[in-house]
Amino acid sequence: MKHNFGAGPCILPKEVFQEASQAVVDFNNSGLSILEISHRSKDFEAVIAEAERLVRELLNVPQGYSILFLQGGASTQFAMVPLNLLADGAQAAYLDTGVWASKAAKEAKKIGDVAIVGSSADKNYTYIPKNIEVPADAAYFHYTSNNTIYGTEVFDIPSTVAPLVCDMSSDIFSRTINVADYALIYAGAQKNMGPAGVTLVIVKDDILGKSGRTLPTIFDYESHSKAGSMYNTPPVFSIYVSMLNLRWLKAKGGIDVIEQENIIKARALYGEIDRNPFFKGTAVEEDRSRMNVTFVMENPELEASFLELAKERGLIGLKGHRSVGGFRASMYNALSISSVNALVDTMKEFEEKNK
Amino acid sequence: MKHNFGAGPCILPKEVFQEASQAVVDFNNSGLSILEISHRSKDFEAVIAEAERLVRELLNVPQGYSILFLQGGASTQFAMVPLNLLADGAQAAYLDTGVWASKAAKEAKKIGDVAIVGSSADKNYTYIPKNIEVPADAAYFHYTSNNTIYGTEVFDIPSTVAPLVCDMSSDIFSRTINVADYALIYAGAQKNMGPAGVTLVIVKDDILGKSGRTLPTIFDYESHSKAGSMYNTPPVFSIYVSMLNLRWLKAKGGIDVIEQENIIKARALYGEIDRNPFFKGTAVEEDRSRMNVTFVMENPELEASFLELAKERGLIGLKGHRSVGGFRASMYNALSISSVNALVDTMKEFEEKNK
Repeated sequence: MKHNFGAGPCILPKEVFQEASQAVVDFNNSGLSILEISHRSKDFEAVIAEAERLVRELLNVPQGYSILFLQGGASTQFAMVPLNLLADGAQAAYLDTGVWASKAAKEAKKIGDVAIVGSSADKNYTYIPKNIEVPADAAYFHYTSNNTIYGTEVFDIPSTVAPLVCDMSSDIFSRTINVADYALIYAGAQKNMGPAGVTLVIVKDDILGKSGRTLPTIFDYESHSKAGSMYNTPPVFSIYVSMLNLRWLKAKGGIDVIEQENIIKARALYGEIDRNPFFKGTAVEEDRSRMNVTFVMENPELEASFLELAKERGLIGLKGHRSVGGFRASMYNALSISSVNALVDTMKEFEEKNK
Repeated sequence: MKHNFGAGPCILPKEVFQEASQAVVDFNNSGLSILEISHRSKDFEAVIAEAERLVRELLNVPQGYSILFLQGGASTQFAMVPLNLLADGAQAAYLDTGVWASKAAKEAKKIGDVAIVGSSADKNYTYIPKNIEVPADAAYFHYTSNNTIYGTEVFDIPSTVAPLVCDMSSDIFSRTINVADYALIYAGAQKNMGPAGVTLVIVKDDILGKSGRTLPTIFDYESHSKAGSMYNTPPVFSIYVSMLNLRWLKAKGGIDVIEQENIIKARALYGEIDRNPFFKGTAVEEDRSRMNVTFVMENPELEASFLELAKERGLIGLKGHRSVGGFRASMYNALSISSVNALVDTMKEFEEKNK
């Protein structure tokens, strides 16, 4: 039994793997693999339609928003957002809360004018800047809701009149959000939605078509919206597995239920980090992420030894990102409470052995 | 038993489906799914390295070329090619041999100056324009080697001194090519390489970095080349299945062997089309594609009835594209000679029943 704490691509439910595995040899009892059917077939059209419905239902998406399944990851969105939303002469505001937030701003600067309205780079991104001021005339305000590397998460939406654009790659579907607050949300699938290879975009239709740019069709949200994510051949399998995973989430009770589980998991692990004298968290308490828990040891020399014990106990993917060091326990939706308990028990065992 | 003549996403070998299916529940006996492992894991690094090696070996790629596995399909390449290779003030030459070739040119026109140096639009793309003249100072000359919709294929490379760029989406790995003739080759995977969701780019390193444009990092071939296709999270599963499929092709004997099979398959089907008084081909004989065989009936009123019989015989995906009508039999590498024989037998059966 392995407990997969990897940061992404990451754990998905076993049932999803089993059903996906079956579909690779025989999809819907058709005698055909999901990998060999046309994206224009009725069978796949039903898949993408259900995936879209599930996104709308689970996130309670209001009227007037398009749901897009694109390729290219969040990194492609770093370019597509300003290409579509940042007109010449306008300025976009970005919040710098980590490597990915910073990359998003850097890419936008290649396309238009960008103001960084807050940054926590001064303290290695261990906190979320508060009381930031976003110019009222900003084309949009971009932030990253969860910082996978640094273990911080934005729970309160910054107050601004500018249209909100959010990279939710690592916490979408983990907690309640109010989609109506946003002009555009994007998320690489490979955390809580599905496998790598597809990117979810939720975009308010009436903000499109105003940038004044002549865009290559493939980089224009409107072309994907008009074509129902079928402007070109979509990533069939990644969308299919995402659909299975969203089905699983719905059957589990939806976002409310998973959010409670995620709170319980976070409380259990942070509780142990705070209690156990061998460990300490790296992010400030109020901004601690529920998805990615970053922590180090009071005595860094013991880290290799703890990782070794963790491996023996079947806990994998715990090594911290080089920017932070120590450990990172990613606790996405599919990671069970028992896996978190296994980690907590191992931390206690380590304490006993070393005190 | 179904015979999948679909145009793409399309048939791949059964062995590939079986191994891929197993990896979705347990990859390399790791106890983990291929869908939940990090793209930075040693296991996946071995996969992408093997995929790259197989491309180099099968196509005999010379030194000085990068092999990239990207997202976004050929449609993304329609924009990336001119963004990377077409400087301001320069002109690119395009050959218009069908819907996709025409789209490639249209997207390039949004980015720079484009000359259409030949077109077969006058006869619904039933032939490949010959004796075309490409300006010697063209930034590059772009053509589509196989026209999936119209059933034509370019067997002789147009003679030009301009750097050659080719969209080989639907015939790469089906026949011998001389990579050294090209500056850049691209191909959506979902025909002879793998499932939808990954795009192969083979690019000569020394043509990069000369466009003078400031590109978003994700649209810059150099960033992907430097990062070994890991600039951002790659489409793990699509690359894995492509690797399995290329392994299958190598085990079969490589391109020489598959090309002979493809020639035999094409000869069998075109032979029957030409012999059987009920059918006729749509493409001119010398430009007939080996991958996509387009044909109609002398009496179009019988087409529905033939499709019905074909379905009864397990032949699927035969309906022609709306631009051509009639039938299209796609005969990619994984389609066996026995499937082609099944189609030929059904055409004979139809002849018997209706004469």
